[in-house]
Amino acid sequence: MIDYSGSYTDQYQLAMAQAYFMAGQAETGAVFDYFFRRMPFGGGYAVFAGLADLLSALETLRFTDEDIAFLRGQGFSPAFIEYLKAFEFRGEVFAAREGEIVFHTEPVVRLSAGIIEAQIAESLLLNILNYQTLIATKASRMRLSAGDDAVLVDFGLRRAPGLGGYNASRAAIVGGFNASSNVRAGRDYGIALSGTMAHSYIQSHEDELAAFRAFAAAHPDNCVLLVDTYDTLRSGVPNAIRVGQEMRERGGELKAIRLDSGDLAWLARQARRMLDAAGLEDVKIAASNQLDEYVIKSLRDQGAPIDLYGVGTSLVTGAPDGALDGVYKLAFAGGKPRIKLSEAREKITLPYRKQVFRVLDEDGGFQGADVVTLDEEARADMMHHPSDPHKSLAIAGTDQEPLLHAVMSGGRRPDDPPGLSDSKAYCRRRLSLLPPEYTRFHNPHVYKVGLSDRLKRARDTLIDSHAKGRR
Amino acid sequence: MIDYSGSYTDQYQLAMAQAYFMAGQAETGAVFDYFFRRMPFGGGYAVFAGLADLLSALETLRFTDEDIAFLRGQGFSPAFIEYLKAFEFRGEVFAAREGEIVFHTEPVVRLSAGIIEAQIAESLLLNILNYQTLIATKASRMRLSAGDDAVLVDFGLRRAPGLGGYNASRAAIVGGFNASSNVRAGRDYGIALSGTMAHSYIQSHEDELAAFRAFAAAHPDNCVLLVDTYDTLRSGVPNAIRVGQEMRERGGELKAIRLDSGDLAWLARQARRMLDAAGLEDVKIAASNQLDEYVIKSLRDQGAPIDLYGVGTSLVTGAPDGALDGVYKLAFAGGKPRIKLSEAREKITLPYRKQVFRVLDEDGGFQGADVVTLDEEARADMMHHPSDPHKSLAIAGTDQEPLLHAVMSGGRRPDDPPGLSDSKAYCRRRLSLLPPEYTRFHNPHVYKVGLSDRLKRARDTLIDSHAKGRR
Repeated sequence: MIDYSGSYTDQYQLAMAQAYFMAGQAETGAVFDYFFRRMPFGGGYAVFAGLADLLSALETLRFTDEDIAFLRGQGFSPAFIEYLKAFEFRGEVFAAREGEIVFHTEPVVRLSAGIIEAQIAESLLLNILNYQTLIATKASRMRLSAGDDAVLVDFGLRRAPGLGGYNASRAAIVGGFNASSNVRAGRDYGIALSGTMAHSYIQSHEDELAAFRAFAAAHPDNCVLLVDTYDTLRSGVPNAIRVGQEMRERGGELKAIRLDSGDLAWLARQARRMLDAAGLEDVKIAASNQLDEYVIKSLRDQGAPIDLYGVGTSLVTGAPDGALDGVYKLAFAGGKPRIKLSEAREKITLPYRKQVFRVLDEDGGFQGADVVTLDEEARADMMHHPSDPHKSLAIAGTDQEPLLHAVMSGGRRPDDPPGLSDSKAYCRRRLSLLPPEYTRFHNPHVYKVGLSDRLKRARDTLIDSHAKGRR
Repeated sequence: MIDYSGSYTDQYQLAMAQAYFMAGQAETGAVFDYFFRRMPFGGGYAVFAGLADLLSALETLRFTDEDIAFLRGQGFSPAFIEYLKAFEFRGEVFAAREGEIVFHTEPVVRLSAGIIEAQIAESLLLNILNYQTLIATKASRMRLSAGDDAVLVDFGLRRAPGLGGYNASRAAIVGGFNASSNVRAGRDYGIALSGTMAHSYIQSHEDELAAFRAFAAAHPDNCVLLVDTYDTLRSGVPNAIRVGQEMRERGGELKAIRLDSGDLAWLARQARRMLDAAGLEDVKIAASNQLDEYVIKSLRDQGAPIDLYGVGTSLVTGAPDGALDGVYKLAFAGGKPRIKLSEAREKITLPYRKQVFRVLDEDGGFQGADVVTLDEEARADMMHHPSDPHKSLAIAGTDQEPLLHAVMSGGRRPDDPPGLSDSKAYCRRRLSLLPPEYTRFHNPHVYKVGLSDRLKRARDTLIDSHAKGRR
């Protein structure tokens, strides 16, 4: 499915690459940081996702024959085309683990490579990480609402942004979903699949009961019946109960019913009562229809007896944000620190090769502060606000852990990179260390991200020298 | 890139398919309609896009060896797996032309096939058409704002919903964009490419002037300089002018400068004045940074001398909607009309095989009304409101044209299907026939979509017979 090759990039990467190549700078070393500025969904945290896809893409990144044939006709110099034919990514990547809880401003990925390789990797990196981080974060919010016991299923393929649905199905798992309707994602990522019937199936039969019976005959071990085609409580649920009892007489069992319209809380309660009264206490109730983290929370607050939530549009579109504002900024090149200045102080970038330390409390939980340091620092004793020079904080005496780990060296991953279920488990573990004031939806507490004393001074010096240079 | 196969579907399509197969109904004929209920972006029209991708996918739709191997392990019956091995789509498709201006409620695609084929095609169809129609509509709104002379470029890959960026780049062209930064989309769809340099290119050089000179040397025929890295008017534009004059001395020409931050209207005016004063009247001005149709309109209303707009996030996310609510509903199966009832009258579906007629005014322009008819009707003399039984309208004496055309028969497209540039040209032509009261952004006039007298009566009869059946 995924066919990342050299042409999966923005034209300006190739335009810059040709300029570097012609200036003999192809091998100039460069360090870029990936980070975002705004927390998605107005929330208090984000879930980092997409890393495994990115590293797999970088490891095999080549310009295919098709790419080269196309680029020959696009006005690039023949010598540069020859360079691209031999291109591969041989860089080094440090990154937070996939599934990590991450925050604004701090580098989440640090990529070091020859400057052409680093530029060609940029579009790929942003395309993969921005979307999957957005969706994994959205998914984790739904998991928080649904609680640990509910089953969460991605139903988003039909409303997904085209091929992006494939990426969304993966990212949803990282964030805490259990399954997907997307068969392709199931095939390629080992995601559990879930799905039963559409209204059309009921409509195409003479009546609802005949449809339910035919479906039960075809799926004796995995029968979920959609009960809202005609009238949920007067027709759908009674017919499902009848079929559930017939299945039981044959030694089988109806697995669940699904509600897809109407007041889900009320219908779920009524349906539960009817099922229980008929002795079908084990039949689960699934619900779908325009769900998001707020609706799920409301359903749960009302005590709606829903066992499975199917979520489509709001998950795969990352509504209402639609995109994460992640960027990729140069921090070091040709042996020198690099900075991008801006009138807006919070948009001035962080120069140098860096690390991020997370401050822990006595029990190993997150204390609510991450410190960006120079790479050679082993911990931070102090943190400065990234843009307000008057705000700083001592952090002596606490445990700290580095967030960025080597995940690629010489363009190769370690032998046994983490799989999707590892990332999901890691996300769950790390989220359990984040105090609840950061996970609430409305006005969450603001997690502090600051700069170490040395990084701040190094940046100030660089800002000053640029200011002098322009005088 | 695109690798649509049988596994590019929702699990429930396969669950239903197995049930139909086991009941001996694989060949039961079915007719489905694709339509949407809500106009995107609160606008007055939508641009239909994605059809060519859909038909190409259907024509080659098979379950690959990889799909089959995967599905064998998913609990499907061996006989059904054998059926899938031989599966192909042999159906018939009637559709509006790609690029057509379409409206809520009316069928935009009508697909007829064996019911298993029609179900397996559903997820693919919704996934492709919903997103591309959303993005083409968004793009066309930007084109309306920018006017016919401006160049519109898709810069969205980095903020795109993963692989969906590829679909967005294509759909943007249908809606009226000129070019894309997305090299892969350029390679596969023949889309013109556009792109120059990032801030990192400037930062990696000793100073801005050195960076501009190096870039001009590498791209003498296609040099666009990004002027906002340090200080747009005091550094960027003066340095660009200097390099533009140097290029001219060598017989070349600076093509454009690009503004990517600050007040674009003001900066564009100042930059234009400076360029003109230096004799560089032919150097164009490109602008980017969080643009959408409203910002572009505002820039143009202010007379900002901007020649090219680069648009990213808002285009590829289809902000603020994120998704089109297109659905695929059964209208006819096993020789009988089918209907989905609902408490909400506007959600009751339209049964039978249908056509749509557009009412034209004397000059061939759109009069503002489409009528959904039974397929055998040759025109409509009357239209009824689709859900309010008290509203109807005579439409005698006007010209009408059918919107749905045969685009696939026996699973095959005609020999010479329209290409992307045909769809773009068609959209432009059709949009020019739509009166401006339907294209304005705020409170657009509501285009009327109604039912023919015969269709309304046929539906009412069916609703009555269902009501009787349940009494």
